[in-house]
Amino acid sequence: MHKIVLLRHGQSLWNRENRFTGWTDVDLTERGVEEARAAGRALKAQGFDFDLAFTSVLKRAIRTLWLVLEEMDRVWVPIHNSWRLNERHYGALQGLNKAETAAKYGEQQVFLWRRSYDMAPPALEPSDPRHPGNDPRYRALRPEELPVTESLKDTVARCASYWNEAIAPAIQAGRRVIITAHGNSLRALVKYLDRLSDQDIVGLNIPTGIPLVYELDQDLKPLRHYYLGDPETVAKAVQAVANQGLAR
Amino acid sequence: MHKIVLLRHGQSLWNRENRFTGWTDVDLTERGVEEARAAGRALKAQGFDFDLAFTSVLKRAIRTLWLVLEEMDRVWVPIHNSWRLNERHYGALQGLNKAETAAKYGEQQVFLWRRSYDMAPPALEPSDPRHPGNDPRYRALRPEELPVTESLKDTVARCASYWNEAIAPAIQAGRRVIITAHGNSLRALVKYLDRLSDQDIVGLNIPTGIPLVYELDQDLKPLRHYYLGDPETVAKAVQAVANQGLAR
Repeated sequence: MHKIVLLRHGQSLWNRENRFTGWTDVDLTERGVEEARAAGRALKAQGFDFDLAFTSVLKRAIRTLWLVLEEMDRVWVPIHNSWRLNERHYGALQGLNKAETAAKYGEQQVFLWRRSYDMAPPALEPSDPRHPGNDPRYRALRPEELPVTESLKDTVARCASYWNEAIAPAIQAGRRVIITAHGNSLRALVKYLDRLSDQDIVGLNIPTGIPLVYELDQDLKPLRHYYLGDPETVAKAVQAVANQGLAR
Repeated sequence: MHKIVLLRHGQSLWNRENRFTGWTDVDLTERGVEEARAAGRALKAQGFDFDLAFTSVLKRAIRTLWLVLEEMDRVWVPIHNSWRLNERHYGALQGLNKAETAAKYGEQQVFLWRRSYDMAPPALEPSDPRHPGNDPRYRALRPEELPVTESLKDTVARCASYWNEAIAPAIQAGRRVIITAHGNSLRALVKYLDRLSDQDIVGLNIPTGIPLVYELDQDLKPLRHYYLGDPETVAKAVQAVANQGLAR
């Protein structure tokens, strides 16, 4: 039996401002830092330990991981960073808040982008300063690999391929793994692992900063999963994400 | 032409207490944290950028690197951790301060261990709680790989092999590299790169927290090297290490 931990980064500046973040590299708030530390303390108290960590190339997930490892006295655990664990790319919506987006595109349209499985927002133009081709961290990627917008379906595809190529082989080799990532890249992994339908994933919300434990059999099929925390706190955190109404 | 940066971690708790540290995993002091941040700001101000970072599996070097990358807004740069960049293993001296060591082994003997190139202090016994076999970070190593004491010559051997196997190929592939490590593992690299004699390395001191830039030709032969900082500050920092009289 294998046990892995998924962890959504703590609150970021734009979570707080209720903006579409996507690949924008915003930092944690003070509350987000404290959420990450609390997650590390909870993991340590529950006897978790890790041999290998995976995260995105965005600082809110990386710093969350570093803070967890500091609290666990495990800063030496090897870390693999991949853009394929990044948040869903939100295209031209990145940086807009909910009100701006509704004014620009209409409420009905925004609802569809947020809640459909396979519709992507308008793409970033190559000339747009937000285009990932302008960012040195994506320098090694071929242009056709670089998303300029994504549906959740697109996010699932690249997260699943990273799971199969990098994460699953490590787990099967017996490494104890933690993955710190983002609301939608973690939903993508959960959809893939639990074989959720395109409809069921739409209603699934993952709270920030609460470790989500998956127990997997030898073929990496999920046996069960649970959040590390008391049920009431977890339920409130899940509800808070659902109420926010703005997918990240 | 290639340009790489070597950086010795900022002041640690045991630097301050004047103890033999070696592989003991002590943290940075507040001053050490500030030294690391200042190094990051200096590198950014001078236009340095990195594609890849190497460090040890000891937290004083890892945290120094993280702080540098935070100051440079480059926390996404991939980090490779290796025990082969660890500080020289100081065997049974680890944890003793200078006075304790002299009382136990005699001043003349301690001088020889510190200043000879190929003499190693007494080895740790397998039953010693300080033995690296008791530490989960070395779990993947074969027992015969694990040092229980080292001469500087031993440290040079493992640092040079890591240079050849991991660091040099990355540099030759065009990656811009930073290495954050320890007084003796950096002296080992410098001896190897500059082909210093066994005598000349004994008198060479590397200050904490000041980036040391090496410019290398296409065969990775050093063309020149210099510290990033005003010459007076650098000279004082080098002298402070020499005066300390206690190799780390």
